[in-house]
Amino acid sequence: MSSFPQRLSLLGGTGSIGGSVAKVLAATPGRFTVEAVAGGRDAQALAQAARALGARFAAIADPSAGRALAEHLSGSGIACGAGPEAVIEAAQRDADIVVSAIVGVAGLAPTVAAFGAGRRIALANKECLVAAGHFFMAEAARRGVELLPMDSEHNAIFQALSAAPARAVEKVTLTASGGPFRLKSREEAARATPADALKHPNWSMGAKITIDSATLMNKGLELIEAHHLFDLPPERLDAVVHPESVVHGLVAYEDGSVVAGLAVPDMCVPIAHCLAYPDRVATDCRRLDLVALGRLTFEAPDEVRFPALALARAAMAQGGRATCVLNAANEVAVAAFLQGRIGFYGITDAVAGTLERVSGGPAPGSVAEALAVDAEARAVTAALLPNFAAKAS
Amino acid sequence: MSSFPQRLSLLGGTGSIGGSVAKVLAATPGRFTVEAVAGGRDAQALAQAARALGARFAAIADPSAGRALAEHLSGSGIACGAGPEAVIEAAQRDADIVVSAIVGVAGLAPTVAAFGAGRRIALANKECLVAAGHFFMAEAARRGVELLPMDSEHNAIFQALSAAPARAVEKVTLTASGGPFRLKSREEAARATPADALKHPNWSMGAKITIDSATLMNKGLELIEAHHLFDLPPERLDAVVHPESVVHGLVAYEDGSVVAGLAVPDMCVPIAHCLAYPDRVATDCRRLDLVALGRLTFEAPDEVRFPALALARAAMAQGGRATCVLNAANEVAVAAFLQGRIGFYGITDAVAGTLERVSGGPAPGSVAEALAVDAEARAVTAALLPNFAAKAS
Repeated sequence: MSSFPQRLSLLGGTGSIGGSVAKVLAATPGRFTVEAVAGGRDAQALAQAARALGARFAAIADPSAGRALAEHLSGSGIACGAGPEAVIEAAQRDADIVVSAIVGVAGLAPTVAAFGAGRRIALANKECLVAAGHFFMAEAARRGVELLPMDSEHNAIFQALSAAPARAVEKVTLTASGGPFRLKSREEAARATPADALKHPNWSMGAKITIDSATLMNKGLELIEAHHLFDLPPERLDAVVHPESVVHGLVAYEDGSVVAGLAVPDMCVPIAHCLAYPDRVATDCRRLDLVALGRLTFEAPDEVRFPALALARAAMAQGGRATCVLNAANEVAVAAFLQGRIGFYGITDAVAGTLERVSGGPAPGSVAEALAVDAEARAVTAALLPNFAAKAS
Repeated sequence: MSSFPQRLSLLGGTGSIGGSVAKVLAATPGRFTVEAVAGGRDAQALAQAARALGARFAAIADPSAGRALAEHLSGSGIACGAGPEAVIEAAQRDADIVVSAIVGVAGLAPTVAAFGAGRRIALANKECLVAAGHFFMAEAARRGVELLPMDSEHNAIFQALSAAPARAVEKVTLTASGGPFRLKSREEAARATPADALKHPNWSMGAKITIDSATLMNKGLELIEAHHLFDLPPERLDAVVHPESVVHGLVAYEDGSVVAGLAVPDMCVPIAHCLAYPDRVATDCRRLDLVALGRLTFEAPDEVRFPALALARAAMAQGGRATCVLNAANEVAVAAFLQGRIGFYGITDAVAGTLERVSGGPAPGSVAEALAVDAEARAVTAALLPNFAAKAS
């Protein structure tokens, strides 16, 4: 067993994952110490997180926020830095576990910078795998990194995979809540405003991922993640709509056994699992009560109303750079939707248009290559956006 | 890995488990050979099973059925024997895996006789643990036996327990279908005939266990099994009614994660798991399809209509010989119900009466002691039966 406390660094400390990590740490006193915490632009929130976690170092990605960060931390004794190099420093400081929770492709470089022999990376960032999965997994293996999936679905599947050798896996199923438009017609969804799409029925998450849940692109990205994380071909991966969001993932074995991971929809659970792995820690997360829930329901996703799933599947099957392009296009389109510049189906239309234009080519072989493909795709999507302008309602 | 084929002996070859073992063997040609098969009284069925499985030796427990068995096997080249010693011989012949599927306390002596270093015992017999759990588990550990639970619930839990160290287990939940009287009033259940109680909604099983499902005593016995198998205190064990019978068991960990074992209600699945463990084999068992099912429901068991659960819990909490007495009384009472001699609630009334009279005393420390307690309890129950005579309807 490892000795305690274990040292933790947290990349993405101001978002919802950061808050949940703080809750798990509060429930497990003496078990973890925090070496470094990194955030994007919000100096006040980052300083608050760094103080709450007792971090030794805080890094903010936005160079112009460095001064504000220093001011907010004055008197705390917490060292700080600003700019991408400071985030890399946070990733590379001496820690046993690095939580990768920066949202978007911005999380790729710091996560790879955190690689080191015996280091445990708790991965909540999807884009490392979606944008650069081949490179990322090969590099993690080469560097002797232990990758632990922190997304609730992949964490559930990771736990369920303990039951048998990987070669015995017949199918892995991720569940999707179905999002706020599960029961809406295509016409209703087409008229949805950002505020409508941000009303997630079960999970409290950031804006980008909440929109991805409304389009089901989130599930598409997660299928691609699972493809890389668990080294499974696309045809062994499936997504099922499960509105209660308590069964997060299922592994079907070749003998007919199915092992599933369940929990209340609260990120505290997979975070606690990753931080303590291979041991466990007791948390005060709410407990699953199936009798109180009464029923769990399952339905096939409607790929007509939710074209994102088919787009993601096609990109996964195509391979090469296609999933990197898919992700970049989606990030640009979601941002445009949140700004009211395009309509709800403009998101997937813009992604489809971008894939048609620039999805061919080899898988990125480095962070730099992934970022170059990402930038190229973003420019293409940006140019397409005027075609999908939101109609005044 | 083990070398193939692995040699299998099957104690209880003429019941429903025997038939399912034969199906798994048919789906995995070359993987297993059958050394011995044992049955109770039905010479024709045993001979048929022995021929179908290609066994080298067949044993029938009833000494008076030996001649009929020999006749049914004539020309097959399969050696045979009759009487309890022949069943012990079947258990002790050279095999890698012994499936213990004899129904009732009759399975205890042959299963213990099968113990040997490195031997894998796939346990479908509940009574080994209910009647003599302390002795049975200690003896299995002392003899270096690998015990694999073959009951669907315990098999599901065994698979779910791979996800973490045992000390991290917060609660283990077994599911119950609720049986044919789940939606009946106590008055309706009180008037039930054996034919009514034998209509199990999901599982195709023998008569004894089907009646135990109707009273929920089966779930009570399974809680006691789980208590011994997984070394868990009674307060960490729970039963939940789940009419669809596809989630068989759940393990809740201290971090809030829950890992569950699911499958269609078909014994082929846990049998295939046990026979191949720690590897897996591909089977043609029907696959679980959650979308086709649509919903899974859960409810608390009604302990007023189903007093067996509370009786079993009380016996488990009391410890010592109480669970052995519970089981013996239940076997006698179920047989009396099936013969129309007592009513449905006469079963649990007779068990409660027997427990009141003879449940005090230490846990049996050997097969002989367990059988002596069993015999004593049976006599007490038999004497009580006239008090619970079925009313003419």
